[in-house]
Amino acid sequence: MPEAHGDIFTVRTRGQGTYEITGEVARIVRASGLTTGTATVFIQHTSASLVIYENADPSARTDLHAFFERLVPEDQEYFVHTAEGPDDMPSHLRMVLTRTSEVIPVLHGRMALGTWQGIFLFEHRRAPHTRTIVVSVVGA
Amino acid sequence: MPEAHGDIFTVRTRGQGTYEITGEVARIVRASGLTTGTATVFIQHTSASLVIYENADPSARTDLHAFFERLVPEDQEYFVHTAEGPDDMPSHLRMVLTRTSEVIPVLHGRMALGTWQGIFLFEHRRAPHTRTIVVSVVGA
Amino acid sequence: MPEAHGDIFTVRTRGQGTYEITGEVARIVRASGLTTGTATVFIQHTSASLVIYENADPSARTDLHAFFERLVPEDQEYFVHTAEGPDDMPSHLRMVLTRTSEVIPVLHGRMALGTWQGIFLFEHRRAPHTRTIVVSVVGA
Repeated sequence: MPEAHGDIFTVRTRGQGTYEITGEVARIVRASGLTTGTATVFIQHTSASLVIYENADPSARTDLHAFFERLVPEDQEYFVHTAEGPDDMPSHLRMVLTRTSEVIPVLHGRMALGTWQGIFLFEHRRAPHTRTIVVSVVGA
Repeated sequence: MPEAHGDIFTVRTRGQGTYEITGEVARIVRASGLTTGTATVFIQHTSASLVIYENADPSARTDLHAFFERLVPEDQEYFVHTAEGPDDMPSHLRMVLTRTSEVIPVLHGRMALGTWQGIFLFEHRRAPHTRTIVVSVVGA
Repeated sequence: MPEAHGDIFTVRTRGQGTYEITGEVARIVRASGLTTGTATVFIQHTSASLVIYENADPSARTDLHAFFERLVPEDQEYFVHTAEGPDDMPSHLRMVLTRTSEVIPVLHGRMALGTWQGIFLFEHRRAPHTRTIVVSVVGA
């Protein structure tokens, strides 16, 4: 019987960087009892985002962080949205260049992730934040 | 009972910039009568895109526009796809760096957007265009 | 009656570039028999990605490839993830800037793509690879 399940969890970040959330999402998919469909992971923020990324070698994440610091530098002279600090506007731009939602097919009751894929929260602010993630599992 | 609803609407843009469409999408979700599932917003164009972005302070959108003008400048000497004008190829590239679809979980009959999140059409062409948005609501 | 269907196919790439997969996805949507809902296309890799892009004039794809070579160059002095060759780390970054999944509404039994939109696999590695694509069709 086709169904839809929604769930919410929070992640406490320690500032800029990537935080793997694959396990939390997998638990929600399993608890839904659905065997075929999709898992939609959504972050309710505009200064943090989501990426599906290489989860084996941490050096790939080090380079990811360094790349975004260079691609979207702080303190650009043309920025007018500066009231919330130098890391605020770059956070919005780094979010726009990555994703607010990731949708993963569910097959045989599990997310159909590839061998090296993990789901990561990408925190763009320097200060620790509590981030809210919504997961919707739809299917049969 | 799980169901699926599809709807279409158009937005008349006035040239480059972001145009909020959260209200139109929310109306379609409400009209679907579904309480749990996902709302998929899709733009049927390759020179305009979608972003979920900060909807409170317009200065954040000013900087977004300025950032993309710098990240993907017009008139690059290596461009070969130039027949439709100098703003055409940058439009395709700015579209690729943002999104063609955004998927938002539906909980308790409403989109589970965060406090500061709005859904925006990002027009990349200089001339006004009529853009078609498709919304699919799937769930129970 | 709402349903969910999952399918998998592989694409053999010939190295860096874009490969259209619209036809394969359309066949899976048609075979599902669903009339309204969504088709989720997902790539199980972190060095290849998906884009919905202009499918009429091949010169737009030539410029897309050239743009990403410039935006994410190889051999950056700050890269530490270099064990798998000079095209590996740029592959991960070009993947993050495009998409792991694309979700397309299904209306009247067909994907609601715009006139000029095609679904493309974006191969970021230089060597030929076999890439696995998962498609989940959910709806009624």
